[in-house]
Order: sequence, then C-alpha cells, then structure tokens
Amino acid sequence: MLKPPEHQVAGHEAGAGKVGPLVDGSGHFYKPLQPGDERGAQEVAFYTSFSSDPRVPSSIRSFFPSFGGTQLLRTSDSSDVLLPHLVLEDLLHGYSGPSVMDVKIGARTWYPRASESYFAKCLKKDRESTTVPLGFRISGLQVHQESGRWKPDRNKVRKYTVTDVRQVLRQFVSKNPDETHPDCALASLVYGGSNGILAQLLELKSWFEDQTLFHFYSTSVLISYDKGGMGARVKLVDFAHAMEGEGIIDHNFLGGLCSLIKFVSEILTDTEAEVGPANNGIV
Amino acid sequence: MLKPPEHQVAGHEAGAGKVGPLVDGSGHFYKPLQPGDERGAQEVAFYTSFSSDPRVPSSIRSFFPSFGGTQLLRTSDSSDVLLPHLVLEDLLHGYSGPSVMDVKIGARTWYPRASESYFAKCLKKDRESTTVPLGFRISGLQVHQESGRWKPDRNKVRKYTVTDVRQVLRQFVSKNPDETHPDCALASLVYGGSNGILAQLLELKSWFEDQTLFHFYSTSVLISYDKGGMGARVKLVDFAHAMEGEGIIDHNFLGGLCSLIKFVSEILTDTEAEVGPANNGIV
Repeated sequence: MLKPPEHQVAGHEAGAGKVGPLVDGSGHFYKPLQPGDERGAQEVAFYTSFSSDPRVPSSIRSFFPSFGGTQLLRTSDSSDVLLPHLVLEDLLHGYSGPSVMDVKIGARTWYPRASESYFAKCLKKDRESTTVPLGFRISGLQVHQESGRWKPDRNKVRKYTVTDVRQVLRQFVSKNPDETHPDCALASLVYGGSNGILAQLLELKSWFEDQTLFHFYSTSVLISYDKGGMGARVKLVDFAHAMEGEGIIDHNFLGGLCSLIKFVSEILTDTEAEVGPANNGIV
Repeated sequence: MLKPPEHQVAGHEAGAGKVGPLVDGSGHFYKPLQPGDERGAQEVAFYTSFSSDPRVPSSIRSFFPSFGGTQLLRTSDSSDVLLPHLVLEDLLHGYSGPSVMDVKIGARTWYPRASESYFAKCLKKDRESTTVPLGFRISGLQVHQESGRWKPDRNKVRKYTVTDVRQVLRQFVSKNPDETHPDCALASLVYGGSNGILAQLLELKSWFEDQTLFHFYSTSVLISYDKGGMGARVKLVDFAHAMEGEGIIDHNFLGGLCSLIKFVSEILTDTEAEVGPANNGIV
C-alpha cells in the first residue's frame, strides 16, 4: 500500500502525473531514481559508502536515515513504469501529529567542480535567501495544531528574511504558530532538555568539528517532534551533493550548524527568562 | 625614529615612493590613512567602536592589537606630506627573531552590501585560492632561522594549494623550514601546550560560537613566535571590512577558524605520535 508521504515539507512531491517519493506505512520511505538523474545516482553512492564506513561512530549514524538499498517499484504517478527507488527509513513513521522543519545547512550550496551554470544558479539563490547571511535557510515546515496543521506556502518560505527565520523558529515550537505572538509553549520540551533538539545539534556539531570524511552541500537538518512536544528528533537528509572530505573538515556545514544552534539556544534563554520566575515560585 | 616594519609578511608595504605602515621601535605600529581611503576610515571606525564596547570580554580583547587613536605623521615615502595614521600596537615588538604567519580567515572575503565588482573580484580570488576549500588562506609568512630567515615569495604564497598549506603549517614550526621534510621540531612548543597557538585558537573559537557583535571579512589571524619557539601568540589583524553582527554569529569566520584548528591539531597529533615513544623511553 504505497502512497505519497503525508507530511513532506520540502523537495519534489508526488502528485497527479508527477513522480515523487512514497511511503509504505510500515517505516519505509522510497525515493525514485529517474533515468539520467545524476543527483539520485550520487545519493545512492553516498548512502552505500556511508553505511559501510567503519569510521562513522554509531551515535552519529543515528542522525542519518537507515538505508535499505534500492528497489524496483511502480512510480507514484500511477503509470505502469517501474523505476528503481532508494529505500530509506520513513523518519516520521509512528508520529500521530508530526511537526516538521527542513533546514538546509551551509552558507553555500554549490559544491566543488559543479558546472558554472549550476554554481551561478546556487549562488544567486544563496544570496537571495538567508543562506549567505545566516549560514542556513528554512526550506519548508509544518506545525501540528489541534485544528489541523499550519503549513506556510512554499513561495512564502522561499522569501523568508533573517527576521522571518527568527520568528519561524519560535512559531515552530508554539501552540499558536499562526499568530503574531507565538507562545513558544513547547520550546523547552522540544528544543531544551538533555534529549532535545539543542542537545542533538550540539552532538552533531562535535562530530563536524572533527570529521573530515564527508562534505555535505545542500544537505538539510530535519527537525521533527510529535504532538505535545514529544519525540524531538534531528536527522540529516538529502545527500545528492555529499562529497568526500579529503582530510578537510566541512567548515561550510559546521559554520551554518553553529549559527542555527545559536538561534535555538537564544529562544531557550528567552523563554526560560520569561517562564523562569513563575516556575520557581518567586513571582 | 619611524621606519618600515622589518617583519611584515602581508599587506601594503612601505618602500621607495610608496606609502606603507611604520613602526617606532618602542611598541607602536602606524598605518597610513590615505585621503578617500574608505577601508582606512572603516578600520578606524571598527577600532573606535570595538575598543569602547563593554560587551567584549577582556580575555578576548587581548587578541586584538591595542588602539591608540590616530596621529598626523610624515608618510613613509619621505615626501613632505602629512597623513593621519592609525596608531596600533606593534605586535612584533620585543621579538628578537620573529617567525610570523598571516592567515586570512573565512570561506568568503566579500562582505554584505559590497559592490558587484568588489564581490566578483573577491569571489574569483576565493575560488582560486584555498579560501573556498579550506575556509582560510595563508597570505604570507616568514620563519626565523639561524642563518637568516625563510620567507616564501608573495607570488608563490598566492598560489598555495591545499597540499601546500598542509606543508607550510609544518614548515612554520620547523628548524629546517626550507627543506622538503620539515622536522616540526618546534611544533609542540609553538602549537601545543596550555598557552600555545592551539589553545589560543580554541579560546577565540569559544567566543566566536557565541558573539554576535561583529562579523570579520578579510580579517587575518596573525600567528607569531620568537626564536626558540618562545612567546607563541595569536592576534587578529585587518578590520577594514569588520561589520556589525546584527545578532547573527560570524559563521564564516568561525567555520574557517575551526578548519585551521583541525590542521594545527593534526600536526600536533602527528608529531606527538612520532616523538612520543622515544620520549616515553619505550623504543
């Protein structure tokens, strides 16, 4: 029973006549590999190399979707075409009301040896988005609400400014995400704590300060949690432009990750300052 | 008794008919401010703002040259022209045989709101140098030797590849810097230890993970030590393109700094592995 994922917030979507990813409802996510699609081939190559690399610590491995090879499947556009699909872990499997945010990390999304036209296209997008000033950009998000979900339009997300990003990172952990003054009610549950998003991002950061195995261009951090603020989780997705590190740290990814960490920790500091006195019974 | 600095390794040099910096032999370094020179004016503005900013911790302040305002001086080209000069600390004052390296930090040297022509010029240099792949480039160096000094030619330095940088960072702490197999004899003295270069770079890094006051474009880390490997010191120089941070960390500088840190720490690991067994008396 394959169907398009219900909670996709960025990337190509399956739809009428369009080939996109599929999920099977029992924990697998299938990403189509179209003929001549070099990005897809590169992503398979990355997963194959990564999943068998003994130098990656197991604590870090858990930040990556588990990989189940490739599989021939009928495409999502209901044609009779069989295509190979990348078999990955469905990162939102088991969530009943997921909130999800896709954050593309790095102050540049173009990779070494890219064609001049791809380089120019990426550079333009990077300068027009928050990629250059912040070292990351939000590619999409949805926030679960009692009444349904809040999911900003893609065209709106594409135009996010630095100020918007600051606001959206607060909205993402609010029970009233669509209002002007987001309450950040879930900030300490989702971002804070020893298993929260900030702690996970800091663990990832430690690895990036040291690892020289891979460089990740246009890779995203996928931040998710289930309704009520439970199960906050950081995963990395999109490895079509993951490259060999050649003995150099991925300073582009690391710098952007540190920038995101600073934003998240500021929200925690702000909300703790707001709720702190009441919680401590002082006020 | 003003004269051109003897140990300058990068930047404009004073010389016959050319205006450049001067030193007075008692600890001051004078940088000329030419009429219409916007870079100079911006650097004065930075020093003025920085030196009076109470948010900068004093431990961090010591990474910056101390600032003594501006002063009208006869220029270095021996003409009768009086020019305002930036009065700074002479960072090599008191060294009898200094080894110095200028490392321009950041994967991009262009700053926000730069003109398109300046942007294009910087981007080209960044892509042609190690700035893009490493997040830093070496702008110049000299290594003190018994017999004189080893100072690679500027045009050679400009063409340094990733492999060259790896080698030069070893040559910089060697007693035979000009040979193919640098001995790294001074590595643990200069790079290592609780007051060494690595420790200083790590202290600077901690600040950059947090500070959102300034962004430093085209700023260099100046690494120096006196003969025998004494007095190893990290300073920041060149603030013509230092900007307000506007609440965002300087992920560009931070990423490059982390990359440099990784290279330096690898040299320490390698040399400790080499000399370790002998020192432990095991071999």
